[in-house]
Amino acid sequence: MIEEKDWQVIKPRSSKKQYRVGILGATGTVGQRFIQLLDYHPQFKVTALAASDRSQGEIYANACNWRLPGAMPESVKSLLVEPPRAPLDCDLVFSSLPASIAAQAEELFARAGYPVFSNSSAHRMESDVPLLIPEVNHEHLALCNVQGKQRRYKNGAFILANPNCSAIALSLALAPLHGRFGVASVAVTTMQALSGAGHPGVASLDIADNVLPFIEGEEEKIESETKKILGRLGSDRVEHSPIAVSAQCHRVNVSDGHLLAVRVKLVHGAGLEEVREALASFRSLPQELRLHSAPEWPILVRDEPDRPQPRLDRDAGGGMSVTIGRIARDPVLDYRFVALGHNTIRGAAGAAILNAELLVAKGYL
Amino acid sequence: MIEEKDWQVIKPRSSKKQYRVGILGATGTVGQRFIQLLDYHPQFKVTALAASDRSQGEIYANACNWRLPGAMPESVKSLLVEPPRAPLDCDLVFSSLPASIAAQAEELFARAGYPVFSNSSAHRMESDVPLLIPEVNHEHLALCNVQGKQRRYKNGAFILANPNCSAIALSLALAPLHGRFGVASVAVTTMQALSGAGHPGVASLDIADNVLPFIEGEEEKIESETKKILGRLGSDRVEHSPIAVSAQCHRVNVSDGHLLAVRVKLVHGAGLEEVREALASFRSLPQELRLHSAPEWPILVRDEPDRPQPRLDRDAGGGMSVTIGRIARDPVLDYRFVALGHNTIRGAAGAAILNAELLVAKGYL
Amino acid sequence: MIEEKDWQVIKPRSSKKQYRVGILGATGTVGQRFIQLLDYHPQFKVTALAASDRSQGEIYANACNWRLPGAMPESVKSLLVEPPRAPLDCDLVFSSLPASIAAQAEELFARAGYPVFSNSSAHRMESDVPLLIPEVNHEHLALCNVQGKQRRYKNGAFILANPNCSAIALSLALAPLHGRFGVASVAVTTMQALSGAGHPGVASLDIADNVLPFIEGEEEKIESETKKILGRLGSDRVEHSPIAVSAQCHRVNVSDGHLLAVRVKLVHGAGLEEVREALASFRSLPQELRLHSAPEWPILVRDEPDRPQPRLDRDAGGGMSVTIGRIARDPVLDYRFVALGHNTIRGAAGAAILNAELLVAKGYL
Amino acid sequence: MIEEKDWQVIKPRSSKKQYRVGILGATGTVGQRFIQLLDYHPQFKVTALAASDRSQGEIYANACNWRLPGAMPESVKSLLVEPPRAPLDCDLVFSSLPASIAAQAEELFARAGYPVFSNSSAHRMESDVPLLIPEVNHEHLALCNVQGKQRRYKNGAFILANPNCSAIALSLALAPLHGRFGVASVAVTTMQALSGAGHPGVASLDIADNVLPFIEGEEEKIESETKKILGRLGSDRVEHSPIAVSAQCHRVNVSDGHLLAVRVKLVHGAGLEEVREALASFRSLPQELRLHSAPEWPILVRDEPDRPQPRLDRDAGGGMSVTIGRIARDPVLDYRFVALGHNTIRGAAGAAILNAELLVAKGYL
Repeated sequence: MIEEKDWQVIKPRSSKKQYRVGILGATGTVGQRFIQLLDYHPQFKVTALAASDRSQGEIYANACNWRLPGAMPESVKSLLVEPPRAPLDCDLVFSSLPASIAAQAEELFARAGYPVFSNSSAHRMESDVPLLIPEVNHEHLALCNVQGKQRRYKNGAFILANPNCSAIALSLALAPLHGRFGVASVAVTTMQALSGAGHPGVASLDIADNVLPFIEGEEEKIESETKKILGRLGSDRVEHSPIAVSAQCHRVNVSDGHLLAVRVKLVHGAGLEEVREALASFRSLPQELRLHSAPEWPILVRDEPDRPQPRLDRDAGGGMSVTIGRIARDPVLDYRFVALGHNTIRGAAGAAILNAELLVAKGYL
Repeated sequence: MIEEKDWQVIKPRSSKKQYRVGILGATGTVGQRFIQLLDYHPQFKVTALAASDRSQGEIYANACNWRLPGAMPESVKSLLVEPPRAPLDCDLVFSSLPASIAAQAEELFARAGYPVFSNSSAHRMESDVPLLIPEVNHEHLALCNVQGKQRRYKNGAFILANPNCSAIALSLALAPLHGRFGVASVAVTTMQALSGAGHPGVASLDIADNVLPFIEGEEEKIESETKKILGRLGSDRVEHSPIAVSAQCHRVNVSDGHLLAVRVKLVHGAGLEEVREALASFRSLPQELRLHSAPEWPILVRDEPDRPQPRLDRDAGGGMSVTIGRIARDPVLDYRFVALGHNTIRGAAGAAILNAELLVAKGYL
Repeated sequence: MIEEKDWQVIKPRSSKKQYRVGILGATGTVGQRFIQLLDYHPQFKVTALAASDRSQGEIYANACNWRLPGAMPESVKSLLVEPPRAPLDCDLVFSSLPASIAAQAEELFARAGYPVFSNSSAHRMESDVPLLIPEVNHEHLALCNVQGKQRRYKNGAFILANPNCSAIALSLALAPLHGRFGVASVAVTTMQALSGAGHPGVASLDIADNVLPFIEGEEEKIESETKKILGRLGSDRVEHSPIAVSAQCHRVNVSDGHLLAVRVKLVHGAGLEEVREALASFRSLPQELRLHSAPEWPILVRDEPDRPQPRLDRDAGGGMSVTIGRIARDPVLDYRFVALGHNTIRGAAGAAILNAELLVAKGYL
Repeated sequence: MIEEKDWQVIKPRSSKKQYRVGILGATGTVGQRFIQLLDYHPQFKVTALAASDRSQGEIYANACNWRLPGAMPESVKSLLVEPPRAPLDCDLVFSSLPASIAAQAEELFARAGYPVFSNSSAHRMESDVPLLIPEVNHEHLALCNVQGKQRRYKNGAFILANPNCSAIALSLALAPLHGRFGVASVAVTTMQALSGAGHPGVASLDIADNVLPFIEGEEEKIESETKKILGRLGSDRVEHSPIAVSAQCHRVNVSDGHLLAVRVKLVHGAGLEEVREALASFRSLPQELRLHSAPEWPILVRDEPDRPQPRLDRDAGGGMSVTIGRIARDPVLDYRFVALGHNTIRGAAGAAILNAELLVAKGYL
């Protein structure tokens, strides 16, 4: 009844071979984003849905309480929701299973020969699992081969993880600075959106007229994952970066879009304009390869004094750009700025899809 | 820097003659919507901008604090903001001037030969001004001729108004019921979005953790305009409908989308399923004519128990569909339901644009 | 009209016999309100706590995540949370158990000889259970005797219920009008606060930038309970009032305070000033008896155009007054107004406590 | 650690001489707080009201749109609102005038012999104006004498300022650490409430579903004022502290209560438990003197992982305590924690009143 083309954002840039895709955790907040972003995707077609909840056995139209603006894509309505177990009718899987379930379920999919693109935290810190942001550390995907050998996965299967939503936005902002000037330490204070907690997530009564200064496990994830993301690829593992990372995390009453107040200390001196320019001019491999979900600019620098803002900037670049503003010298560390990323697109479903697009382009699939 | 095509919603369906358009009140909330919706419009091209505030004399990029998600369209950035006085370099004007200024300014534009599509309340209740919703009372546009003669406007100029945002959503919901069963009385209780008050509008401190049971002039507008909209065209004026209309209006802490709890008493008996069907099957002249901004379905009926919702449904049909749910028999009047319309698209800028498209199609321009 | 003492924390008016009180559902939203309101109460002292969840066996300080502003009262911190089963160390119980559990648990407490003051919906519509609002239908408490005999409860035990939170505010507003002019029909549209759904209640992601047009069972409760509340006491039951009642219910993003847009049709004609005066001058038995929790004015009429508002008016009369504003003639029914009541004080815990105070005063305890 | 009497409305501890007080800026957000907090104050009685807006010449009941929960105190309703010019019928003035007007108006009041307790930023950084927080730097009030001499004020008149709302909460949190271990640098990221911007302040449309990363002048104020507050009193001026201070400020959609994420580097090593203890045990002169508005504990340390929270903790100590939680070692600086203060009580009106109470106790008035 609702015209789905009105809701469609990302458009195909070319026609290529199509991979059949399974979504694990298909009824959740991130699962719905996967389905929305993959509707009309030129390379991936959703052919299987799985969930760990009681929705198993129903068709998706009945199993899923669709909570995104716009209508559920027609193409998935009649798919049956299955348990998150191989075999599934697909060539690869995107997983947004809860961490507790993902640990084993994703492992079993890889063991059964499926490439697994995981948004879960279960395997992120394992030494042979790439923690990938294509613009930041695409060379880490070489770990896929290491992992396949060590774990004896067949058919080129692997588990590849995207980082935590805040760690992605932070790492994207740090990447150009680290590359040019070296980052010695970073202190980030987050103001994170409600959708990051999934559904039902935070009780409305707890966040009404309020801010919550605690998100379970979040500060630890940002502090540890950022070091792995920015680490150097060794022979069979990533040497974590020695950057000192401090995170203070807060939940604010915003639907989508994580805001990060960042302070950085640089290894090498740099002028304010150099810092701005490093951020504003940053482009990387996904832009070169013109990957379907790659934004033209991974970082958008805005010079107005009151940007970025979640409601105005979260959808920039189709939700795949990080918007940065308020770049200034800092009296305690060297520089400070504010960064904003869409937590369920660039920070979750879109991140995993971009990873998969990179692996297609690099011949891993 | 932000790719504006990512933000674009409505796409041209065909290429036709282009009219040059001026926007009066271009820097305000509705003015910005006009510009957003007219970007890439097949028939209208924005060539002039005017505002009554101190932004006059600056280019739009500097004059306007753009507050819509997505970037300001490139095509208007370098246009100069002029005072709202003829002549302007355009064939017709869309006006979202404040009512106090609109009264005289719009009159002077019409007198100078410009067709005026007004979103202001200034002229709505004048007997020779059509108060137009193309799906509801397109025959009222015949008043344009009456008006032109009475007021001695030249060149086919006229003032044509779209109704108040809530009155539009209400009238669209009533139209199919009135047409089939007759509406004897209607009681509507609104929960209206913040954008309806423009900018700065409601102070955040007044609406935080709160509901405001008062919107100046709103109940009166809904009660009087609805009777004119649903009235019958006489020889030189509209005979207002005798329907009894009661409105209680509230401001809620929602960015966009007015929610209306409606109860109606019908003249002729009707079963619940007939009522639902009358709403769900409603289409009218704009759909027949395939007007560019006309949604495929002016009314979308949803049968889930918890719809419509502002955040999920306001953008349905590109913001031009009214979503209706919770249709049920009512113990006091006959039927009740909940309706939701996007107040700055279907309720303001989109309404005026659809009106202009109809007048183009009917040869009035 | 509002006097500042209405806003003070409620203070004892005299020293009387103290009853030992048990709270069923002590860890929930309403349970916490019971404990807060009973701290320093002159007649009731909390001596036992019970809950149906996994908090059983812990002391309250550990079992309860206290979510009200202000600290947990010292006096309950070391009480053990027990299962909701007799015997409990108390003379009477206040119950805010979930309806599914309350049905049997409350019955068993009454059977064991405890007077039960229930905020649950489980027994409200049973013919021998008083659905009591002391200002509205205090004569209904005579049903306690009927019930005791019919059910063979010992020691003067009974189950006495307070109505649904919205039904209480509505009935208080209708009582003076019904008494003087007769109410023929009433149509109420509610905008209800988050705390009414308990905790965790509504997911924050569902209500952010949104209104929900659905609260399970709420419209039915308001429509049926109001008729019983305003009904006439017969020999062994209440004859429900023939008033036609229509309710449309919405959840809004407000922490506390239900707002009701009300339209009424009266049996006997009345002028606007008479209607206002009937509301503003309303006082009843609890005020005469100077019950501890009775507000000086059960209804506060405000004449400003933008009142009542949840954030500003919910705590009037210590949360026990209903604030009414925007009284006006209505084109469809006869009169309309907006009413506001604190849903967890006058609409829940405070309602049950006032009921208990009345029964003490009347010698039922 | 929190005792329930901390939450009670502040009560007189003894009866003393009463001073007649004038409020400058009486109709604003902070002006209303002054009036609310001074109602029933044992030492100060409001006898004069002034405002710079068009409310002059009306009685306060008509001039002021009272926006605090609870009713306007009876005692001020019939006071006339006068222009902010001497003479006023009072012994001293509290000023919350806008900075632009305060600069001259406050100077003229002091010149006319009135002690001026200013919440405005106009004179804060002048070398002979004490920037006072009684628990932190009460010795700075000796500057009043210096100032009186230098400026030749008569009758012991002076201008005494309280700091910016965020600077107060920050300085209170730093004071015990600075006293015991020395603070070398501090980086604070604020999430500030709407009431801090006054009324109308932030437009609701700008903050709905959003965070604003910019508050004009706020970062500068926090960075400079904190150094003066923590500076050492010299012979005729304060030597600003050499502490490095970095502030990033954000506006969040919360009515009252500023949340501060703080990181500190200490001069002398200290263990986590020592840091916690230094904060939790902090008391100072106002507590010794038992000043009326002094909270029993200026800092309340909470050990739950998810506190402090604005809605739950802002009213602690009658709004005069700062609540601190999440104390932990920090990988970049030495320690981090989250602090919460009520911005219009401890951060504005209450701050000025406590200052005045101290000056009474010290014989300056």
